[in-house]
Amino acid sequence: MSETQETQEPKPEPVARTVVHRRGGIEVDSADERFGLAADFVADVAAALRSDDRARARDLVNELHYADMADLLERLDAEDRRLLVEAIREDFNADVLPELAQEVRDEVMDALGFEDFAAALSELESDDAVYVAGKLDAEERALVLARMPQASRMSIEQGLAHGETSAGRLMQRELVAVPNYWTVGETIDYLRSAQNLPERFFAVFVVDPRHRPQGVAELATVLRSRRPVRMRDIIDPEVENIPVDMDREDVAFLFRQRNIAAAPVVDRSGRLVGQITIDDVVDVIDEEASEDILKMAGVRGAEDTNLYRTIMATAQSRLWWLVINLATAFLASSVIGLFEHSIEKLAALAVLMPICASMGGNAGTQTLATVVRSLATRELNPSNVWRVGWREAAVGLINGILFAALTGLIAYAWFHDPLLSLVIGSAMIVNMIAAGIAGMMIPVVLAKMGADPADSAVVFLTTVTDVVGFFSFLGLATWMLL
Amino acid sequence: MSETQETQEPKPEPVARTVVHRRGGIEVDSADERFGLAADFVADVAAALRSDDRARARDLVNELHYADMADLLERLDAEDRRLLVEAIREDFNADVLPELAQEVRDEVMDALGFEDFAAALSELESDDAVYVAGKLDAEERALVLARMPQASRMSIEQGLAHGETSAGRLMQRELVAVPNYWTVGETIDYLRSAQNLPERFFAVFVVDPRHRPQGVAELATVLRSRRPVRMRDIIDPEVENIPVDMDREDVAFLFRQRNIAAAPVVDRSGRLVGQITIDDVVDVIDEEASEDILKMAGVRGAEDTNLYRTIMATAQSRLWWLVINLATAFLASSVIGLFEHSIEKLAALAVLMPICASMGGNAGTQTLATVVRSLATRELNPSNVWRVGWREAAVGLINGILFAALTGLIAYAWFHDPLLSLVIGSAMIVNMIAAGIAGMMIPVVLAKMGADPADSAVVFLTTVTDVVGFFSFLGLATWMLL
Repeated sequence: MSETQETQEPKPEPVARTVVHRRGGIEVDSADERFGLAADFVADVAAALRSDDRARARDLVNELHYADMADLLERLDAEDRRLLVEAIREDFNADVLPELAQEVRDEVMDALGFEDFAAALSELESDDAVYVAGKLDAEERALVLARMPQASRMSIEQGLAHGETSAGRLMQRELVAVPNYWTVGETIDYLRSAQNLPERFFAVFVVDPRHRPQGVAELATVLRSRRPVRMRDIIDPEVENIPVDMDREDVAFLFRQRNIAAAPVVDRSGRLVGQITIDDVVDVIDEEASEDILKMAGVRGAEDTNLYRTIMATAQSRLWWLVINLATAFLASSVIGLFEHSIEKLAALAVLMPICASMGGNAGTQTLATVVRSLATRELNPSNVWRVGWREAAVGLINGILFAALTGLIAYAWFHDPLLSLVIGSAMIVNMIAAGIAGMMIPVVLAKMGADPADSAVVFLTTVTDVVGFFSFLGLATWMLL
Repeated sequence: MSETQETQEPKPEPVARTVVHRRGGIEVDSADERFGLAADFVADVAAALRSDDRARARDLVNELHYADMADLLERLDAEDRRLLVEAIREDFNADVLPELAQEVRDEVMDALGFEDFAAALSELESDDAVYVAGKLDAEERALVLARMPQASRMSIEQGLAHGETSAGRLMQRELVAVPNYWTVGETIDYLRSAQNLPERFFAVFVVDPRHRPQGVAELATVLRSRRPVRMRDIIDPEVENIPVDMDREDVAFLFRQRNIAAAPVVDRSGRLVGQITIDDVVDVIDEEASEDILKMAGVRGAEDTNLYRTIMATAQSRLWWLVINLATAFLASSVIGLFEHSIEKLAALAVLMPICASMGGNAGTQTLATVVRSLATRELNPSNVWRVGWREAAVGLINGILFAALTGLIAYAWFHDPLLSLVIGSAMIVNMIAAGIAGMMIPVVLAKMGADPADSAVVFLTTVTDVVGFFSFLGLATWMLL
């Protein structure tokens, strides 16, 4: 079963193949093992553009893959970008558009003008067109849609009618569906003669006369079956229908869990309206993971990671999080304020006081990140949440005791006050347990409330660990030392 | 081009399809829109196992998808898990193994015994078998491999010879390759008659007589071409060969950038030795994203997010990070210690001192997360690193001025000391700029040094923001106020 399958034929006549050497194509930078456009190449293009040598610029970028063209556009300065768009306007490849960062796409749209932008948009497959159109302002979108052929416009409008994170927004309407009574032979003949098939597909959907999907036949299965076999006999009925309003995170989970290559999307009446393929799911996983990491760090609404935003826009996008942090920082300060007199009497308290808070914050963040990822991968769920919660508190206790001893020893070496060491050690244990529980509970409660478990979780956590850390340390110190 | 492609035939005879209702199968919990096994179902299985009713347990889990079976095994207690393995030993589905968390898989292996575990392993496709074998201890692995058929054993040993994050480890050896002079018809006939094809494939590889790949034909292209067409005329030569030692992150980048479904893996002499498919890449993207988020939070070596580890193992795995944090916390404390006399004179300094440090830490983490993700998606690269660095410093300056004003006002309202407000405001600006620069530079320098940009980045960052925050605030206060 796990034999290596290779059709090896000991045959002569080696077919010479010309290796296409694409200038500016992907190259391996041996220094850091990264791919991408060569810096030289970007500079060459920019130079050609600035010296107004459009023919040379066109010549340079002629054979670029659309993803590399998108990279190139992102790397150029705004002015060079406009010049490049001008140079390639005639044969602008629409596939570049979905690959661009939002801010760069806006500039490209301005350079192309609504007319040409609309023409490009109507060349895209429906899911890409909906994605790009969904990123436009309402006003711009109206201007662009008005310039599109009716069929494309309606397809985009229908796509945009679905929620932003829904399967309906993710799906593409282009697909191959055949009646269940067709044979494999009829299907293959149809595929060979049909003109307007999707550019790429992984499976054939088998539908009943009401266009409700009955199953999916992956292309490998179709290819391996003999011509007289009925399509309904080779479908995999395990692949479930995806309702248009299913959340895309659930779609991604289903694809991973069931190892699906392509799944049918159905409307409320169960009719096939589109398909989602595994390459769409790759994007979802990537975006959701980016979102988690950025949200945990307090960077919001940043699918595109901000590199092309203006400085003011970036500063502004991070403002709210910092305002909330400032509020919680003052809350922590006010806890310290309660013990101002203790600090006046013993300034060593001020010196040691950040330690418990900081350790609690860090231990809590470890738990938090683990829990956020476990929720994202569905490893953590209602049935094991309490068991895991108890474990995190226990981990906090164990590490708390350990670091209580360590911190106490260091504090003793520094201040030679055994009671002070006892105070900081006790406060450490209290705060590490609090950190474990808070790091566990905060994302779980956020998820229960229907919020994103990563969102603002760190700010809640550090509020808890700062307040508990300062209060337990300064409180115990006031009680035991003064 | 973007028309909706659907073969709609207005035909009669609706084919009734029985909806397979799989007990314990995937269900939508309308409350939180999550999927997974029903808690009831898990309890039912556990009850059957404990009452020694193996027949009922077998009956319950009979129709589970292998991924759900893996979930079930993970959710059961260790004892129930052993009982379930015992109950299903006869028809144990090997596909369950790669889906299990490491700790659970170890227990399943113990329950199965090396003999049955080895048998299961040799049923897996090569990439899954290598993955599972790679997770075993050297000792256990030797015991398992010794019990496998020679072909499977050698295939696994060859796979394990490749670096852990290499394309060679990721690839599967099973693939479909045909000589370049074959026609589409010959290829289809071969696929229909061959016995030991991979379970699933997305493309046919076209090779020269020395078994070097010349291109890839996706199945859709094969299906759409007429029988007399030569395979070499329908290949997509854009798909590059992947060297066995390419890093899997680079593989993932290439797949995303080029929108590839399946790519050939070649050895040093350029011969085709395996394939990587898009579903493998999904796993890589997921794992790398998990790693980034966990590493930033100081959770190490945690592909499996620890939920099934023992409490002691978890506590231990988080220890190092906390030790490093403790060291940096004491470093920050020692900075405060420099100003102990200032604090004795003015305890308000101790109350306000955490604010600058905390704001700097949070602003820096925003930058850090953005940069880590930009490096991961290759948006940030040597050609734009300085531009982005300057932007982050500027963002720090703008937000620094804003929060300087805000913090100064609040401090004035609290302590009625304009000079103290001036001090905290100035320190805020200094630390916000430092945070922007450090948040940017730390991951970039780590990447330059060949380290993971996410690894320990937060600890370096908070060291900078704590030290700069405390020093600038207390230093300015000592100079201006006392």
